[in-house]
Amino acid sequence: MKKHYIMAPGPTPVPVDVLLAGAKETIHHRTPQFLEIMEKTLDEARYLFQTSNRVYAFVSSGTGAMEAAVTNLVNPGEKAIVVVAGKFGERWKEICEAYGINVVEIALEWGEAVTPEQIEKAMKEHPDAKVIFTTHSETSTGTVIDLQAIAQITRNTDRVLVTDEVSGLLAEPLKMDEWGVDVVVAGSQKGIMMPPGLAFITLSKKAWEIVKNNKCPRYYFDLRYYEENYPDNPWTPAVNMIYMLNQSIKMIKEEGIENVWERHRILGEATRNAVKALGLELFSKRPGNVCTAVKVPAGLESKKITKLMRDKYGVTIAGGQGKISNTIFRIAHLGYVSLFDTISAISALEFTLHELGYPVKFGEGVRAAMETFHKEGVAG
Amino acid sequence: MKKHYIMAPGPTPVPVDVLLAGAKETIHHRTPQFLEIMEKTLDEARYLFQTSNRVYAFVSSGTGAMEAAVTNLVNPGEKAIVVVAGKFGERWKEICEAYGINVVEIALEWGEAVTPEQIEKAMKEHPDAKVIFTTHSETSTGTVIDLQAIAQITRNTDRVLVTDEVSGLLAEPLKMDEWGVDVVVAGSQKGIMMPPGLAFITLSKKAWEIVKNNKCPRYYFDLRYYEENYPDNPWTPAVNMIYMLNQSIKMIKEEGIENVWERHRILGEATRNAVKALGLELFSKRPGNVCTAVKVPAGLESKKITKLMRDKYGVTIAGGQGKISNTIFRIAHLGYVSLFDTISAISALEFTLHELGYPVKFGEGVRAAMETFHKEGVAG
Repeated sequence: MKKHYIMAPGPTPVPVDVLLAGAKETIHHRTPQFLEIMEKTLDEARYLFQTSNRVYAFVSSGTGAMEAAVTNLVNPGEKAIVVVAGKFGERWKEICEAYGINVVEIALEWGEAVTPEQIEKAMKEHPDAKVIFTTHSETSTGTVIDLQAIAQITRNTDRVLVTDEVSGLLAEPLKMDEWGVDVVVAGSQKGIMMPPGLAFITLSKKAWEIVKNNKCPRYYFDLRYYEENYPDNPWTPAVNMIYMLNQSIKMIKEEGIENVWERHRILGEATRNAVKALGLELFSKRPGNVCTAVKVPAGLESKKITKLMRDKYGVTIAGGQGKISNTIFRIAHLGYVSLFDTISAISALEFTLHELGYPVKFGEGVRAAMETFHKEGVAG
Repeated sequence: MKKHYIMAPGPTPVPVDVLLAGAKETIHHRTPQFLEIMEKTLDEARYLFQTSNRVYAFVSSGTGAMEAAVTNLVNPGEKAIVVVAGKFGERWKEICEAYGINVVEIALEWGEAVTPEQIEKAMKEHPDAKVIFTTHSETSTGTVIDLQAIAQITRNTDRVLVTDEVSGLLAEPLKMDEWGVDVVVAGSQKGIMMPPGLAFITLSKKAWEIVKNNKCPRYYFDLRYYEENYPDNPWTPAVNMIYMLNQSIKMIKEEGIENVWERHRILGEATRNAVKALGLELFSKRPGNVCTAVKVPAGLESKKITKLMRDKYGVTIAGGQGKISNTIFRIAHLGYVSLFDTISAISALEFTLHELGYPVKFGEGVRAAMETFHKEGVAG
């Protein structure tokens, strides 16, 4: 008997009630019955982003929503400022380049967080770069940026601040309207606690002014069709995933978004304390609450750690990505994750490291996590 | 108590076993465990297309797969031949135009089927138009084209024949390799008996030669990434929908593809005979087996018929689309549909027409359907 624990930064564990909501009878999408569900669900989805703007749901992975942000906001030949400090910053760059956009890259070491000053400097040097693409939570390095401070710089200008919240949403606080963030993209399989298959975008009025007249070639992801048909989808929506979204939002509302953010903060804190107690080192210069990136100790291999944890203990964590594939492993604490899931993951990590020859005193990591939960007032 | 019958051309009824397969535990997509499922499932998906080419699954609606076909095969400024005889032919045209492709349109009356001669003529007049976009089953008019005969013309040339099988797959016979069709796009929520959310594409070697070097801007739907990562998805695949696909293919294989085609043929024949027995007229010049498009009798309105059938009898059929919205209604016989579903739909149509003042002798349509089933040797 082996139970499965997904402690990777997406897909994340899906509550049974969400899975079963997806197993409800498929109904036709162009009926008043379905449109009522769709409207209610998209309307309530605003809460996840803390916005009064409309939220649009794509049938796509998060990358599709990123492409939508690029092709609806920038034209081939135009400049865009892109922060690259990991694999998902690279993805913004790749998408821009695929569409012939002139990328002004803020290139950072992986694991660093872009500063408001760096954004401001790029804005000054490139007054013609109207759109700034950032990654709130850079999943590949476990890093969070100070999005609120960055929005403070862009909000009263003609610049449009876009943020990839594919992994960050609900794990890192985001107050889109209050902070003045212009465009947010997200995916279903992370904090929203659904299987992969839906992606989201929401835009400020300032951003919409660009979208309306943007000339970049696009069709499937052309937001004008989504706006025209709202709450209906211009193509065929993923009916059963909308049922799941409805159920997930209900659960998130019951918990309360502040509590969801706080839970992620505490899980992140406990995980960081646990790995440090095991003598391991964090990779990120500014660790976030989506996943904890840990440097692989000398003599060990990332692949061996993740493989043993998964195959022997049923705990799926992630290795590194891109140029740091073998340098780090990442333990997520994202979505439908309880403190006992985190304790289980740390305990599995201890068994695994010990088995691979790294010196471990069993329970040291777990103890540090438990002490964190206790200190934070959530247990004991 | 009201049972629901989806007799619209997508979404179509989903078997409970498929819905429940989608409710299985979400696992991480980059694990050997999931990749094994993905590989097996995509491998077996070839059977649906009767091809030995690889099948790629997009997280998107069918329109996404259509966009993939366009952007991977044609460049802005180049010519493409597009058959337009309904809403989905128009969609090919719209996508091409969104990407600056020069559309050579074979414009037909809605309800007509393009002939091999018309394709041949366009090919002769436009030797520089390398790609031909067709719609095997034009859902908006209930029309099927003679794809095999058309492929006969293109197969030994340098032209690439693309066909939209979003509604046609499994309802109309398709032998991709034997017929020499180059590119096929499809969706999950039709003959495949799944909810909407996945789309498919498969390509011949001839088509791949173009894809490799095509310059049209694209990223999310760039097939080169899908090929590089096969069977993995370059982005995050819709894990739970892959479970469903696996289950659907199992059921289709158990029935046998020839039997699936034959079932659709007979359901189509029974429906056509039933509506004719009620004194109604078919809209299509070459009716197919996906849905039967029926002219609305004088004095009635399409919207009233579909609304009453849905709200009073729980039977969802479709009205018209685009410029023929009010001219026709469409009864589908697509996917997980039995002869009794069709009999139920015809019976609901009779009640509805009678209630709206159209003269009906109860049971006349049903009788014609039953006699068809009997004559075809499947009942009685």
